Amino acid sequence: MARKYANLNPMLQPKSVAIIGASANPDKVGHVIMQNYLNVGYSGRLYPVNIKAEGKILGYKAYKSVLDIKDRIDLAVIAVPAQIVPAVLEECGKAKVRSAVVVSGGFAEVGETALQDKLEEVARKYDLPVLGPNCLGVMDLKSRIDTLFLPTFKIDKPQIGGVSFVSQSGAVGSTVLDLISHEGFGLAKFISYGNAVVVDEVDILNYLADDPDTKVIIFYLEGVKRGREFINVARKVTLKKPIVIIKGGTTEEGSKAVHSHTASLAGSFEAYRAVFRQFGFTEADDLDDLLYFGKIFDTQPLTTGKRVAIITNGGGAGVLATDALYNNGLKLAEMSKASESALKKVMPSIVNVRMPLDLAGDADDKRFGAAIETIANDPNVDAIMVLALFQTPGADSRVAAQLIKYGTSGKKPLVVVSPGGNYTEAHKNMMESSGVPVYGSPSSAAKSLAALISYSIYREKAAHGNGNKIDG
Amino acid sequence: MARKYANLNPMLQPKSVAIIGASANPDKVGHVIMQNYLNVGYSGRLYPVNIKAEGKILGYKAYKSVLDIKDRIDLAVIAVPAQIVPAVLEECGKAKVRSAVVVSGGFAEVGETALQDKLEEVARKYDLPVLGPNCLGVMDLKSRIDTLFLPTFKIDKPQIGGVSFVSQSGAVGSTVLDLISHEGFGLAKFISYGNAVVVDEVDILNYLADDPDTKVIIFYLEGVKRGREFINVARKVTLKKPIVIIKGGTTEEGSKAVHSHTASLAGSFEAYRAVFRQFGFTEADDLDDLLYFGKIFDTQPLTTGKRVAIITNGGGAGVLATDALYNNGLKLAEMSKASESALKKVMPSIVNVRMPLDLAGDADDKRFGAAIETIANDPNVDAIMVLALFQTPGADSRVAAQLIKYGTSGKKPLVVVSPGGNYTEAHKNMMESSGVPVYGSPSSAAKSLAALISYSIYREKAAHGNGNKIDG
Repeated sequence: MARKYANLNPMLQPKSVAIIGASANPDKVGHVIMQNYLNVGYSGRLYPVNIKAEGKILGYKAYKSVLDIKDRIDLAVIAVPAQIVPAVLEECGKAKVRSAVVVSGGFAEVGETALQDKLEEVARKYDLPVLGPNCLGVMDLKSRIDTLFLPTFKIDKPQIGGVSFVSQSGAVGSTVLDLISHEGFGLAKFISYGNAVVVDEVDILNYLADDPDTKVIIFYLEGVKRGREFINVARKVTLKKPIVIIKGGTTEEGSKAVHSHTASLAGSFEAYRAVFRQFGFTEADDLDDLLYFGKIFDTQPLTTGKRVAIITNGGGAGVLATDALYNNGLKLAEMSKASESALKKVMPSIVNVRMPLDLAGDADDKRFGAAIETIANDPNVDAIMVLALFQTPGADSRVAAQLIKYGTSGKKPLVVVSPGGNYTEAHKNMMESSGVPVYGSPSSAAKSLAALISYSIYREKAAHGNGNKIDG
Repeated sequence: MARKYANLNPMLQPKSVAIIGASANPDKVGHVIMQNYLNVGYSGRLYPVNIKAEGKILGYKAYKSVLDIKDRIDLAVIAVPAQIVPAVLEECGKAKVRSAVVVSGGFAEVGETALQDKLEEVARKYDLPVLGPNCLGVMDLKSRIDTLFLPTFKIDKPQIGGVSFVSQSGAVGSTVLDLISHEGFGLAKFISYGNAVVVDEVDILNYLADDPDTKVIIFYLEGVKRGREFINVARKVTLKKPIVIIKGGTTEEGSKAVHSHTASLAGSFEAYRAVFRQFGFTEADDLDDLLYFGKIFDTQPLTTGKRVAIITNGGGAGVLATDALYNNGLKLAEMSKASESALKKVMPSIVNVRMPLDLAGDADDKRFGAAIETIANDPNVDAIMVLALFQTPGADSRVAAQLIKYGTSGKKPLVVVSPGGNYTEAHKNMMESSGVPVYGSPSSAAKSLAALISYSIYREKAAHGNGNKIDG
């Protein structure tokens, strides 16, 4: 292929969309997708296509073929049986459709490699960027596109935000999308790319590198086909924005499972890991980490310092948090003499003014506010972990308001740890939806801070010309 | 002291309770505690005591001193200012009160060591088992006792069940209690023991070893004073039931923080860890683990085999789960030929009958049920991890019902992984409250299975006389 990277603009910001396989029957995938476009309020030109179509589908004039549409189509969403996908793509090529998403399954993942080769051949012939097959496609709430064919009541509705999520696997994709929405952080783009026959991870990362709406990329990856291009694009992306990656198949047995899942070659994880580390990727050990790391990168400023202040309203939690910092390669900040004197003036005698700073079980918003203000301005402190246990008598929504005030100031990274049930969840939601990352345990918070700091150090080195340079 | 272990029966199953510091003023701790006893429906004899008392408190006749009560008092709950606690205890001693919980703070934890020594002296003089001071006390929903003085709306209400939770720290205690309730598993007893002046972790473990309501103990520990006794009691307990323990102060800096928190000496964690491992404790790395491990031990049978079957409705999740097994020292089961043939007969062609068993995104309750039934009876399988992604089209409450059916059968350990938002949470709650442990990620599920298997192996070795024997 002549072009190095597929142009995904028509796919992600389409002015005109044809839904091939659209149907008036609510049980059909093409119906669900068409309905989704209407639900998200897509404002471009929408064309349902169905070979058996007569009249209108969901109020829109239906076409028998994409060739019958007079308009230039930016994106064709294809939801027809696998066997006829190549023929449909051929028509798209002839109609000069600019991009296609094939949600249909039934290709290499079930052994139909010849059919998949045929699909690829047609796509190459017309130089058509095709996403899939066997994928969920794309979602972008800002462009108001949504090719997902899942029951909407099963997945929480995401807000618009700075996290783009890329997944080779559809099921992992929908699960993490649901978690992103539930956690309350905002989605820029969701791209599920399935069998990656034409458009692959390299094309997607290249697109997201320059996407102004994407602040952080989180990524479920099983395998990479174009190694050198992947490295080049990865290097480019991580100089601009963090990539949090979870690799499926890090163990030998997991790697075998990858092969039977998407027919990808997982390859040696050590080789991947070396690349990830060299080029500033943030590795997630599990799905949890994707979310933990995603939300700190989305909301908090970078810092290369490792001195973390701990402010708590529970002594035992402060002990566990201190352990968690050291277990993650960070250290407990020592506050300056100036902070110490300032705090001694305002804190009651039961508060022992030292790190970890235990504000005691009756700490209220005033005590939290005074502590955080002083510590946030302390030059000996690089980042702040606040343990706000909402089970205690003094902790309420005013404490949450203080944490929102400082956690969204953008001065120093601030993370909150608030484990608990319904009352705590309500406060967690207030904070998360305002842009403060909240964790359920000291160790997940410490791990996330360590990831942020590690990436910050990579970026600083790279900016000073000490980055790793490899050209393709 | 002559007695080796304090007798905690009167404290945890009291037939008569005096609340010293009880008050008609709702702002007083003594009022909250009295109200809690009424709320939980305590059916024994209740006596409010207050030096300034006139008439009744919350409908009960009030006494000026415990000495004025004619009845024999099993438990005195003491919520009066620290300075007068020794005098109040002296009266308890004279009145032959059988046990006391001192919730008041203001002792060694704020430098008042002389006052704490005085408290101890009185307790020793009367051989009075005193819990605290500086603690939340005890909760037992079966005995209907609750000395906690926390706002009830801040903590989810626990169900009655098999998990007893012991915490040196009050704030960690209330937080984990809230999490236990929120997760939906049942509480046997909650004991927060604070400064551990008289009743300490050794007494508490000794009591719980023989408590028929306690199936598993989860424990937040900062330090141990009586090393040899601790080892003896630990050995006794772990032969009968699992202890999941989180140690505060595992790092040098964390250990310093312990000292400033409860004035305990955390000691070398390596020494603790050696004891924990030798005597079959299950170590938790963080608060999350306490819950993860607690719920598998509470609900699932023991097994010494490490062959884990994975059943999933998402291929990518199956890959991550396979990695998680091997990362936790477990292995993927290979199904028997008989299971393979049986499944090939009932599964649709898109299901590749091998491990991890990917039932595909449209798997419904019938497909899940058939798969689990076959695998549960497969002699090559020791335990089962089911990844039920509720975002997929076929997963609904009937799938949850199948998982409840097999997850509560007690044949082989079964864990479920269901990460997600509101729709998933609803199904998670159904399963958890029915006794099926549900996890948010493959790695937390694998880690919990590994903990169960590791403890099972310890128990089997100990039963065959290969256990570690140390006598005091």
